[in-house]
Amino acid sequence: MSALATGDGVTRASVAAEVGLTRATVSTLVDELLAAGLVEERGARRPGTVGRPGTALALADTGPAGVGAEIGVDHLAACVVDLTGAVRCRVEARAANRGRDAADVLAELAGLTAEAGRLAEAENLRPVGTTVAVPGLVGHDRGTVLRAPNLRWEDVPVAAALGRDTVVENEANLGALAELWLGGHPGLRDFVHVSAEIGIGAAVVVEGRLFRGARGFAGELGHVPVRPDGPLCSCGATGCLETYAGEEALLRAAGIGTGDGPGALHAAAAAGDPAALAALEEAGAALGIALSGAVNLLDPQAVVVGGPLADLAPWLLPGVRRELAERVTDRQWRPQDVVTSALGPDGVLRGAAYSAVRAVLDDPASWIASWTAKTDA
Amino acid sequence: MSALATGDGVTRASVAAEVGLTRATVSTLVDELLAAGLVEERGARRPGTVGRPGTALALADTGPAGVGAEIGVDHLAACVVDLTGAVRCRVEARAANRGRDAADVLAELAGLTAEAGRLAEAENLRPVGTTVAVPGLVGHDRGTVLRAPNLRWEDVPVAAALGRDTVVENEANLGALAELWLGGHPGLRDFVHVSAEIGIGAAVVVEGRLFRGARGFAGELGHVPVRPDGPLCSCGATGCLETYAGEEALLRAAGIGTGDGPGALHAAAAAGDPAALAALEEAGAALGIALSGAVNLLDPQAVVVGGPLADLAPWLLPGVRRELAERVTDRQWRPQDVVTSALGPDGVLRGAAYSAVRAVLDDPASWIASWTAKTDA
Repeated sequence: MSALATGDGVTRASVAAEVGLTRATVSTLVDELLAAGLVEERGARRPGTVGRPGTALALADTGPAGVGAEIGVDHLAACVVDLTGAVRCRVEARAANRGRDAADVLAELAGLTAEAGRLAEAENLRPVGTTVAVPGLVGHDRGTVLRAPNLRWEDVPVAAALGRDTVVENEANLGALAELWLGGHPGLRDFVHVSAEIGIGAAVVVEGRLFRGARGFAGELGHVPVRPDGPLCSCGATGCLETYAGEEALLRAAGIGTGDGPGALHAAAAAGDPAALAALEEAGAALGIALSGAVNLLDPQAVVVGGPLADLAPWLLPGVRRELAERVTDRQWRPQDVVTSALGPDGVLRGAAYSAVRAVLDDPASWIASWTAKTDA
Repeated sequence: MSALATGDGVTRASVAAEVGLTRATVSTLVDELLAAGLVEERGARRPGTVGRPGTALALADTGPAGVGAEIGVDHLAACVVDLTGAVRCRVEARAANRGRDAADVLAELAGLTAEAGRLAEAENLRPVGTTVAVPGLVGHDRGTVLRAPNLRWEDVPVAAALGRDTVVENEANLGALAELWLGGHPGLRDFVHVSAEIGIGAAVVVEGRLFRGARGFAGELGHVPVRPDGPLCSCGATGCLETYAGEEALLRAAGIGTGDGPGALHAAAAAGDPAALAALEEAGAALGIALSGAVNLLDPQAVVVGGPLADLAPWLLPGVRRELAERVTDRQWRPQDVVTSALGPDGVLRGAAYSAVRAVLDDPASWIASWTAKTDA
């Protein structure tokens, strides 16, 4: 399937050449994918190459699709992407979820995912799985939120409330996977991805795979100490990165009410407000200090700043790059190794939806078999 | 070969059962290993199990052996280990290597490795490769030291000076690999290993493999910022861990001359000297702060304190554990997840020597083929 995901003008013959199978074998496989609705024919391949013209193939924009859902501190959202990664529908609701009863949150989210599923079916898409992005630690069962301090949740069985084929994943992990899969950096396989909503979320990708650590809790950049005697953090420690560059800390330092959100901070910075600029300067430096430690330990190809932080990049990145230039031991490190994500604030949600699709793309034969079994049953 | 490395009382039949091959196939393989001198027969297996008694097999304590060499700021050393990992001979020399001409250092080291090789041959060992441990960054060729600030070296072609079959490796990496291979913690496959001579050396092992990072420079714990406005570090940045817990910083804070070394610090601490105790307390806290960041990012099973630092563990570890307890986000983290290495100050040197042996154990067939070709030539 990956040979088909690479672009336009793919034919049976070009796939056979790429994967090293005979044309006949590839044709048989493609016929199965066509029958299952995973692949579509798009007419004759565009001219310009020699030989008998083949029929162009592409991943289907109908057929299997992935549902992504997101539980934020102040919003809920759901979307559906098709096999190509394109967002086909999206629904969202503002919601004050901090400290709200988890059952209420999950009931509202179930309503949104059901609505997204109905919209998808109206476009001839078949949702094959749901991934829920949460701002917290997820258990080994990939169904339970162990702890989400900014929601005030402990041990909430999220997947059980949303039905079968639901997987729960940390939002920072999904942001990083979205960057890996959909970010448009083909050679980028080793990076630290950092984003922020209320907390600071980060995740580490190594050799094209999410780095989870021995217990599954790797990537907690938000609680790397920046100034060990600094302010008290929600985690109970002092001077964590989150106390300098988390959204609440940033808004407070800029003199903006937490109800106004990052949009107000962006506007104030764009208008040259001195308090906003000073807050962003200090947050950028703190982010750079914490990232210096991460880069010295992990030696990634790049640091990607994504999510809502990416919008603030013009003011954050100078401080980030200055600290990294001063503190990274590897002299090959360059300021341009800090990049901003092009995915925008929906990176996490798209990553959630696409992760369900990836399971089909990575192993289409298994999916075809299970789908056939379900359809026959 | 790994089935043979697991312990006493291994027989052809027990290997066959463990690896899932027939007894006849295993017998043929074992005969090849016996002929090549990699394996020895040790007489009848001890009683206590049913069935026809087999002949006990073990890795040979003659045959292929690895040479390890170490370039320290104040010493040079070489040793030889056999296939079982036992040190068979060891030579060393005190030397003031900081700023000394690299050619002189390497000539003296070549003399030591040659002497170690002669001692090994007198014991019927055949050195198959040499690994040199260096306190600095090693190039992709695994032969050149790119930069070793504490030696004042830049771009020194170490392997070329020591002859073929020589590989160069960062000392911290070898300390971690020694812990993985020889440390006596069978289930430990994800850990951060930290040691110190003049600098702070650390390395990360993930899923039983050394984690090198995208450019090969991962594990630079010594330059993780502890207090960003702290003292100037040899790397040019401020407040790195090394400025608090490196050997020079520790000795200075304890009021001990750098010529006296860690032995004097150990003696002063054991005698209850207040300056020594205060210096070790502050260094332990700094180490704990930097390790908190590392644990939050990497989520390892454990932190292993090795090398000369391990001798100071009684005074360093309380501060390390206190900071980790306060700052690690993963609530499953326990104080006893910080352990000291049992390998002692020779861990790096043994790791260097054993790394040459590992290549034979990991792929004995290739080694037998190349050895036969050399012997026939």
